[in-house]
Amino acid sequence: MFAFEFDSRHPAGVSADEKITALYTDRYQLAMALAYWKNGRADEPACFDYFFRKIPFGGGFVVSAGLETLLQLLSGLRFTVDDLSYLAREGFPEPFLEELRRFRFRGRIAAAREGEPVFPLEPVLRCEGGLLETQVVETLILNVLNFQSLIATKAARCVRVAGDRAVSEFGLRRAQGPGGLWASRAAAVGGCGSTSNLAAGRLYGIPTAGTMAHSFVQSHDDELSAFRAFADVHGPGAILLLDTYNTLKSGLPNAIRVAKEMEERGVALRGVRLDSGDLAYLARRVREALDAEGLANVSIVASNRLDEHVIRSLDEQKAPIDLFGIGTSLAVGLPDAALDGVYKLCMAGNKPRMKFSETVAKANFPGVKTVSRYRDEDGFFQADAIHLAGEDAPDEMRHPWEPAKRLSLAGMESEPLLHEALVDGERREAPRSTTEIAAYAKERLALLPPEYHRFENPHVYKVGLSPGLESLRNDIHRKMEERIEP
Amino acid sequence: MFAFEFDSRHPAGVSADEKITALYTDRYQLAMALAYWKNGRADEPACFDYFFRKIPFGGGFVVSAGLETLLQLLSGLRFTVDDLSYLAREGFPEPFLEELRRFRFRGRIAAAREGEPVFPLEPVLRCEGGLLETQVVETLILNVLNFQSLIATKAARCVRVAGDRAVSEFGLRRAQGPGGLWASRAAAVGGCGSTSNLAAGRLYGIPTAGTMAHSFVQSHDDELSAFRAFADVHGPGAILLLDTYNTLKSGLPNAIRVAKEMEERGVALRGVRLDSGDLAYLARRVREALDAEGLANVSIVASNRLDEHVIRSLDEQKAPIDLFGIGTSLAVGLPDAALDGVYKLCMAGNKPRMKFSETVAKANFPGVKTVSRYRDEDGFFQADAIHLAGEDAPDEMRHPWEPAKRLSLAGMESEPLLHEALVDGERREAPRSTTEIAAYAKERLALLPPEYHRFENPHVYKVGLSPGLESLRNDIHRKMEERIEP
Repeated sequence: MFAFEFDSRHPAGVSADEKITALYTDRYQLAMALAYWKNGRADEPACFDYFFRKIPFGGGFVVSAGLETLLQLLSGLRFTVDDLSYLAREGFPEPFLEELRRFRFRGRIAAAREGEPVFPLEPVLRCEGGLLETQVVETLILNVLNFQSLIATKAARCVRVAGDRAVSEFGLRRAQGPGGLWASRAAAVGGCGSTSNLAAGRLYGIPTAGTMAHSFVQSHDDELSAFRAFADVHGPGAILLLDTYNTLKSGLPNAIRVAKEMEERGVALRGVRLDSGDLAYLARRVREALDAEGLANVSIVASNRLDEHVIRSLDEQKAPIDLFGIGTSLAVGLPDAALDGVYKLCMAGNKPRMKFSETVAKANFPGVKTVSRYRDEDGFFQADAIHLAGEDAPDEMRHPWEPAKRLSLAGMESEPLLHEALVDGERREAPRSTTEIAAYAKERLALLPPEYHRFENPHVYKVGLSPGLESLRNDIHRKMEERIEP
Repeated sequence: MFAFEFDSRHPAGVSADEKITALYTDRYQLAMALAYWKNGRADEPACFDYFFRKIPFGGGFVVSAGLETLLQLLSGLRFTVDDLSYLAREGFPEPFLEELRRFRFRGRIAAAREGEPVFPLEPVLRCEGGLLETQVVETLILNVLNFQSLIATKAARCVRVAGDRAVSEFGLRRAQGPGGLWASRAAAVGGCGSTSNLAAGRLYGIPTAGTMAHSFVQSHDDELSAFRAFADVHGPGAILLLDTYNTLKSGLPNAIRVAKEMEERGVALRGVRLDSGDLAYLARRVREALDAEGLANVSIVASNRLDEHVIRSLDEQKAPIDLFGIGTSLAVGLPDAALDGVYKLCMAGNKPRMKFSETVAKANFPGVKTVSRYRDEDGFFQADAIHLAGEDAPDEMRHPWEPAKRLSLAGMESEPLLHEALVDGERREAPRSTTEIAAYAKERLALLPPEYHRFENPHVYKVGLSPGLESLRNDIHRKMEERIEP
């Protein structure tokens, strides 16, 4: 029942998200939108940046994910009749609802490609348009990108440590409700070869995998009958679960017996699954027994509370496991369970804007910006510079808050990180399938040097400001401080 | 923009979940279903229990949530034409797909009422029906109940510690994708009075709350103009965000000035919001300044990385906060982010069934069971006994794994924990609105003695087995052990 290839018959065009309407937002977005509209500012030019501050899992990178989902949702975003009736009951005035009835997202989105490794503080997505439309879509943008990037990042960590062994996502039962659909999608973006989730399989063209549960074994009067019944029906796809009663004393001998019976009929058993106990020890014992019986082609699948750290430990113990099924920790992104992405206004009324709290570190960078990524002679990623959209890629960048720290970029090749994805609310490129996105992520993650992939104290990827952006930020900051404390 | 009452115009009948079909399941459910069907066992009587093993957040109880969502989904569950075409492409045989085309859930569900405090190991939901139907719905049951119970439990902890101050759920931006819709619903079940999430407000009849974001202030040339513009539009509903530039030096004096201007027009400012910095210190300073200006009725709303522990700390510091807005930690249920609920076969073919791994603690309890809850003279919950469905509520119960530990229940009043919710796939009671469910949860949580509510080492609520169930479990276990090691 395993299929390891992405299915090209399922383009990304099928969406799980038809139920998400423009009302999928926070109330304050509409409270602000109402004020903009009343003051005749709804169409005033504005620009917001989406960026995050902290990499989850103590890691060295985030895999940007969710863009395809987001673009599909944005390009069809409407307030439905039911939404508008609801808002009327909630006290929003009729002429404003008429404005919302006509609402379409007509803005411009530039973003890092889905699957791109991205880093703290840099704009991963830039949203330009009228004040009203760019404000209303804030919650949707955050909800999609924060969650899918979290899960794609977790998946990439698991897949890397699993090396040439397959990784399947098994988490729907513990996922955060229908968030499980996007979890399966994002896990595929991050490199998982399959999911247990059939709905996600259909919606996103992800291969699905499935064996049997303990209940199947329990429902028979004995384990041997259960294994025979399953093997009869599933033939060469069958994977038998060994630990319903006792892995080594019952599950293993029964599975070997059934595998031999299948062999006599010319059918090879696909695999066995371990779902409890000491997986390293059990996998070794099971492998030895299978090999001794001439069943070297029978795979061992392991599940039960796996994550990237457990997989690494199993690997260090040379556990002969062929496929890892990862559930909860992958589908909900443990231990962080959220990415701290924010969406900050950087331009309104054609003036650069910034917020600053007590600490400069919580300020955002003003102005319409872009990001250039610098690569070394071998093509590996070296540094990203945030600069104003009108500036060329700079020859030098400055640390965001420590002016003495500078990095020369002279002579290095650079490429733009952000690409136009929507212009006037219309897509610039054909939708990309999950397969294509996963392939892109794999290719790009391979260009990130190993020191950013390691789990313990990964190297901190350098993200800096162009001299022009640094000056603009400092000027605005100084003027605002002067206004508060003249 | 705050509304603190549930809106009775939104019954629970409106569902966000129309997109969830019977394909919202794990592939292995259909792999097993195929085998049951081929072997003529699809309609064989079966019973599964849903229960969990570990209480999240180190707490003393779980608030059962998600039942209303689940019943709505189960009673309309179908494989759509698209689902069936997909399964055909995935290799499922045509006659089996014909069976799935006719699939309806016709089983019987008994469950703890939504909002009920529940405890480890006891069946919270019992699902009886044919082997095929009860197996296919496993993933859906786990997905709904695990997540919504997690969030309702987190909310109940936050609401209890907030005492008479209001709690609002603000998490959609960091929620796990569309899981955010159920998060808002479950937070309301657990006691949150409002949500920022408009879609959840509409779908589940939850009051919504919303103020302004930093972007609103930034989009104006100065903070005072922003506050005036917002107050002009929102009048007595306006809540002004103080920390865009500097809470005490800028936000506070500007808010006071606008509040005074509003006062002259006969309008009272609703509140101010703090979203960064030392909330306890800032709230005190802001309260003092507002009171000194005769603005004692202006409320203080606090947000930014709140959870039950931060709220308790703010309370200990006597921070004069009137409403807490809780985002990420509530909407994703940090730090656990998942409840470990399982769904285990306990009867098939009219025989009791159990799984046992290496440890007895991971075994499930065999047979069709129910739960009786015992209360003391004042009506407080004292203990729950799991017993066979045919048995009366027992006079004594045994510890699940320590046979010497027994508790006499003689003379105590008991009541059934599980109530029939679906019979032959049809609902037995009218749908309950989120308002009604939240009121029930509040009433029932008040019957749980305080020692189970405390955060540090909460008392362990006693859940035991009737003597009859214990004997059945031990008998089956012994026979199975003998079969493995005769």
